[in-house]
This record gives sequence, structure tokens and C-alpha cells, in this order.
Amino acid sequence: MKTVNIALCGTGNVGSSFMDLVLKNKQKIKSNFDVDFNLLLIGSRKGEINNTEFKGVLEKDILKVPLKDEIDVVVELIGGTDISYELAKSSLENGKHFVTANKALIAEKGSELFELASKNNLHIGFEASVGGGIPIIRTLRDGLISNKVNWFKGILNGTSNYILSKMYLENQTYESALEAAQELGFAEPDPTFDIDGTDAYQKTSILSFLSFNGEIQMDKIYREGINMIEPLDMEYGKELGYVIKPLSLGINYGEKLFIGSFPAFIKKNEILANVNFETNVIEINSENLNSTAYQGPGAGGYPTSTSVMNDLIDIAKGKVFDYSNLLNSIEIDNFDDFKATRYLRLMVLDQPGVVAEISKLIAEKNLSIDNLIQKEKQKSDGIIPIVIVLGECSEKVANSLINDLEELSKVKDPIQQIRFID
Amino acid sequence: MKTVNIALCGTGNVGSSFMDLVLKNKQKIKSNFDVDFNLLLIGSRKGEINNTEFKGVLEKDILKVPLKDEIDVVVELIGGTDISYELAKSSLENGKHFVTANKALIAEKGSELFELASKNNLHIGFEASVGGGIPIIRTLRDGLISNKVNWFKGILNGTSNYILSKMYLENQTYESALEAAQELGFAEPDPTFDIDGTDAYQKTSILSFLSFNGEIQMDKIYREGINMIEPLDMEYGKELGYVIKPLSLGINYGEKLFIGSFPAFIKKNEILANVNFETNVIEINSENLNSTAYQGPGAGGYPTSTSVMNDLIDIAKGKVFDYSNLLNSIEIDNFDDFKATRYLRLMVLDQPGVVAEISKLIAEKNLSIDNLIQKEKQKSDGIIPIVIVLGECSEKVANSLINDLEELSKVKDPIQQIRFID
Repeated sequence: MKTVNIALCGTGNVGSSFMDLVLKNKQKIKSNFDVDFNLLLIGSRKGEINNTEFKGVLEKDILKVPLKDEIDVVVELIGGTDISYELAKSSLENGKHFVTANKALIAEKGSELFELASKNNLHIGFEASVGGGIPIIRTLRDGLISNKVNWFKGILNGTSNYILSKMYLENQTYESALEAAQELGFAEPDPTFDIDGTDAYQKTSILSFLSFNGEIQMDKIYREGINMIEPLDMEYGKELGYVIKPLSLGINYGEKLFIGSFPAFIKKNEILANVNFETNVIEINSENLNSTAYQGPGAGGYPTSTSVMNDLIDIAKGKVFDYSNLLNSIEIDNFDDFKATRYLRLMVLDQPGVVAEISKLIAEKNLSIDNLIQKEKQKSDGIIPIVIVLGECSEKVANSLINDLEELSKVKDPIQQIRFID
Repeated sequence: MKTVNIALCGTGNVGSSFMDLVLKNKQKIKSNFDVDFNLLLIGSRKGEINNTEFKGVLEKDILKVPLKDEIDVVVELIGGTDISYELAKSSLENGKHFVTANKALIAEKGSELFELASKNNLHIGFEASVGGGIPIIRTLRDGLISNKVNWFKGILNGTSNYILSKMYLENQTYESALEAAQELGFAEPDPTFDIDGTDAYQKTSILSFLSFNGEIQMDKIYREGINMIEPLDMEYGKELGYVIKPLSLGINYGEKLFIGSFPAFIKKNEILANVNFETNVIEINSENLNSTAYQGPGAGGYPTSTSVMNDLIDIAKGKVFDYSNLLNSIEIDNFDDFKATRYLRLMVLDQPGVVAEISKLIAEKNLSIDNLIQKEKQKSDGIIPIVIVLGECSEKVANSLINDLEELSKVKDPIQQIRFID
């Protein structure tokens, strides 16, 4: 039987769940997988843990953990990119495999760490960094055997999906939906990274690396949060047969490769449109498999720890994968050239000639209007919404149009733009 | 670099796709996985293949294949349980790992073969036997690290799902939907095993083995095909907010474990209800992950071969799993005790008192009627449908009621029974 000596760093929600799983399932893992997982050491800056079954050593100085000879694998469940980055480097330099749930670390430092792991013939496990309990990293990696990914579409941030689902299905406002998410523990007290799109953006970069085998290029990935979405947009979407979802998109057009993470209109019968609340989903379209989709809990202590455990089994079984082989120099295209049909919502003064002025500007740019919705009901302040479904055009062209439209004196407030992704 | 010498037996649709994949991706597999897949030998009873890139040996006598010393793995893509069973036994007895896409073989002979593999420290790969390109076997196996499965629900037969989707979404008859499936190649010229439920039943037994870790007990698994479903049932389902799907179900109530494969009414907003045409899906509810779902192409040469390739990578990486450890003596309960709410459609003579007679029989059995639908429109022959949604009761009780109802002189034709699975 193979013994794997494990050190865990980080004793928060995920760390505690991992401790519980690895200690509780020791016998089951032995008999099913012929592996003995030994949790020898826990790095905890507080120097205390809440698990009476742990009989190993507690180490307050996290950076001493990878220096211990007896350790085979360091499991990092701290988060951030400061101490966890130092820990990763030191682990790999000191001959320890490294397993993490840290999307920021892999997104920002992955390329460097994969090279370091390769040099030392070590494995980096990061299944838990995207999609929590969904085995998406191994699925994409296994797909590398023969598959060429055409595109992926995902919902990778549970908080954003929860908020937009509440707004869509229960007609809640953005604020009350966010509050509900915080009460249920889906959103952090400071939810900035969830709602401004940072979390999904980091995860998207990791999926893009595995899907298209190019170096991680964070600066080439378009990012937009969900905080501008209003109930009004939900309503118009419903009328048009669409749902607004926090989309992560990677699409290879052959000539062009675009990666982005932004709220988008999805047709209501599509897979992604029907994945609600905190659930995550990833749909992959590839050469040999066409569309496959994977959905499940995208966060939470036990789902995340289950993925960590699977990485540990890979290591125990010698299934070391050299991710540095995938760091090819493939260019991600500038998102400015990304083409889509777009929803524009303008808040305008309810005066004669306003539609004519808007239409004229659109026609001048040789753009088409696929649909124009102007409702009868007038707001008390004399400002009404006009919704335009703009025919397919690039970001560049759309943004220039939006700038021009916003300069019209009858157009109030910034214009809302939401892409249709079919 | 690890070299794996492969023999392929079977050169039909899946076999040909596998040949193509393994030969075309040789370099990619070398660089990404550090493994050299050598297709040395092909067993083909016809003695001819349609691939000019294959430079190995053709063997007409399939049973000679596992006797060759240089072979590490035998890949069986023949089907059935005759020669493939002999081939499996001989492979394992002669020190070869065995990879198969054959659900009948694993369902019927799995227990014996897993024991034999264990004795010889060999691996049986059968990812391709359920869900085609969906990595469901490894997902369930990896879940064994810490997860207890509460239930699984799946759509495992693409032909059945295609036919029922056509009927539901396009108002087709059963016959025209089947014809369309045959024209598109989803259904075999003889589709018996698809539509009588045999195919799904075999796959269900494999999922049940992996989910609940009990010996494969085919005789304890309830089976019902889709061939009795009529457009009328679809219509009533729509009214009630349900879709009829070819369901595979395994559910562990703690005290009771039920496994079955039968058409069922699924609420229209459920995951399974929205997976249409030839697509397969498996939803798993487990202790640590709650619900996760996996969907994709359930058949086809390339999806199936992709799963075969993943099994080969496992073998190359030494990830041998001893499935005999899972052959515990867990009892599957008799399906007679399975409780569900039920849809009963009776074709009755449109005469006064018929509803009273039916209601009386139901009341006598202490059963409740959750809903009763009797439409105005009368058939020309004086026979009309009455639909009863019967409150929760066991199979035994429901079947006894159905027998009694069918004995009423005003009830014509057999009664249609469809279970609601929420």
C-alpha cells in the first residue's frame, strides 16, 4: 500500500472540511484505492484547529511546512497570492507535490509554477480551483488525449448566479438578492470579487489555458461584473426569450480566439439558462464529443475538499501531469474585435423625434436594428426606456456607437449593453 | 516514456473511430501524457480494416489475440456476451488489462471479471459502457473517496430519449419518431434492446454497482421500455407540468434501496426534463456534493472511443482500480415496495357512472386521487380517456388496483401507468 504524507495549510471553511474528510475516510480510501493518506502536519497561523481526531503536528509558521522532509504533498487552502505563492514555490523547490483550491494563484502565477513543477517532476493539483466539486480540470485534461475544444461556456461564480437567479425568478432587486446571498453565506461580507467579475475572470483564465493550451494571459481576457444589471433588463430579456447569466466564454473561431467573462443573454432553452442559484455549470464543445456539460456546487467546504482529495489520489497513483507542456504561445485576440448581437437599453426623454435621432446615428454606422421596443408606460420624470437589439457588430463599433448615443441630449444615464450569446 | 502495446478487437463503427483516434493522436498523447500508445494488433473476424495508417498485424481469430506476449491491453469493441466474454476471461488470465465499451458484458459478467482482474492485479476499463463520452464511471469511482451516493437519476438510452423528445416537442407519433431515429442512425435497424429498455437496464445496473457498491444484481432491477407511451400521455403530462423521460433510477432511502429503468414523468423544470433528443445525462446526489449532473453524447464512435482512450491512460499511469472491492453483499429491495405517485390513463366507455365505479374501487383500497381529468371531447367509438393522478402508493398496491380496474366492463384496453419521479 502506498502511503502519502500530507501537510495542510489553511484551516478556514475549506481547510476544516478537508481535515474532516481525510480523517473520516482513511479506511475507505485504504480499501478502495489502496492508498494510506496520512495527515501529518497542519500549518495554521492561529496555531489552533477545531478537530479532535487530528493527531499530527501544528505549525504556526506556514513557510516552515514545505521544509519538513517527511511530507510528500502540501495542500494549500489559504487563498490569496501572497503567502500561498511563497508556499507553492517553496513546496515545489523542496520536492513536494502541491495541491490547491486557489484560483487567483493559478490564474496569476500558474505559468511560473507549472514550469517549476515540471523541472522538479512534481504535480500541481488544482481541480478545486474551478467549479468546486465539479471534476472539470480532469475532464479537460483527459480530453487532451484527442479532443480539440471549439468553445466553452460556463457559469463559474455561484454568488453572481444566485443574485441574477433571484432577480429573474423571484423579481427581486439587485440589493435584496445580494443580501439574501450574504445571509445564506454564498456571498462574502465584502462581495467585491464576486460581483465585479474578478472571481469568474480568474477561473475563466484557467479554463482557457486547459481548453486552448495557451499561456495564461489574464490581460487578454475581457471582464465585466454583474453589478450594473437591473430588473428592467431582466424583464426585457424575458420578453425576448432570454435569461441573463454570468457567462464565462472561450471561443476558438479558428482564425480568432476570444476569452471573456461578462453577463450575457442566453436563450431560455439553453443548458446554461436553466442552471440557477448557486449552482455552477461548464459546457464544452469539442471536436470528438460535441457538447458535454457538467454542473454542480461551485463552492463550499465539502465539494471543494472532494476535488482536493481526487488530486491527492492522482498523486498517490503517480498520475503526474506536466502542465508546462500546455504553455504554448497561442495568442488570445483582443476582445475589441469580438462580434455579437447586442441589447442596448437607453433611458431617454419622452419627446418627439427621439427614436428618429437614435435610428439615424445607428444607420450612419451601417448597423442594423433587429428589434426596437418602446413601451407606452411613462415614468413620472418624463424619462422612458428604449430597448434596441443591435445586429451583429464588434465591441469596437458598438462602443463607439454607445459613446455617440450618450452624447445626444435626450439620452440620460449611461446606456446598458448586454451581449446575446447563442 | 511508458509504452503501452494495444490490441483492438472489433472493427465496426466504434472500433474504426478508435483506430482513427489512437493513430491520429499518437504524437499529442506522447507530448501531453508522456505515453506511447502502440496499436500492434487488430482482431477482425472479417480480416480486413479500413485504415491505411495501421501498420500492425491483423488477426482473424479473435481468441488468439490475448495469447500474444507483446500485448499489454486488449480493447474489446465487439459487443454481445459470447465471444467478448471469452476474450475478457482469456485476456485477464493471460496478464492483459482489459478495456471495453460493452455494457451487456459488464452488467452480466462484471462481478466474475472484476474478481478475475483483482486476482491477477489487472485493470478493467469500462468508462465507455455507460454514457458514451460522458466520464461518469471515473466520476463515480473518484467519488468513492468520500462520498455516499443518495440517489442517481439518468437518461442512458439515446434512442429512447430521441423518440420521446420527438413525440413531446414535435407532436410526432411513436412510429414516426422511431423511423426518424433509424434514418439518423440513432436507432439500430432492430431497435428492440433500446425501446424495450434492455440497454438502459444494463447501464443502470452498472451505475448501481458503482453508486451503492453492491454486487451486480440484474434480477433486482425493475425494467420497462418506452414502447407503450402514446402521444395522449405526452399531452396530459404537459397539462400537469411534466415531461415523460426514459429514466434510470437508483435511490437509497437508508432502509431501502430501489433500482429501476422505466419511462417516468419528470417536472418540466428539472435537469433531466430539459435534456433532449439523443443526449444522455446522469444526475448524482451524494452526501458531500449534493447534486451534480453530467450530460453529453451517450453513443457514437468518437465519444465512445474518447472514453476508451481515457481508460488506456489510466492503465498507462498505473491507476489500476480493484473493482472487486466494491462487490459487497448489499441487498437491492424488491421493486414491488417502491412508492410513487402515479398517472393512470384508462380508456372507458363514455357512460354514466363510470367515474363513480372507478372512484369506488380506489376508495376501497384506501388510495387517494390527487387529480382526475376527464375531457369533454368524445371519441367516435364512444370510448374516452380518463386520467387519474393516484396518491403515493407501492407498486404492489397500484398493480392490484390496476388489475381490479381492468376487470370493470366499462374499462377498455390495458391501463397506462406512468410514475411521477420528483
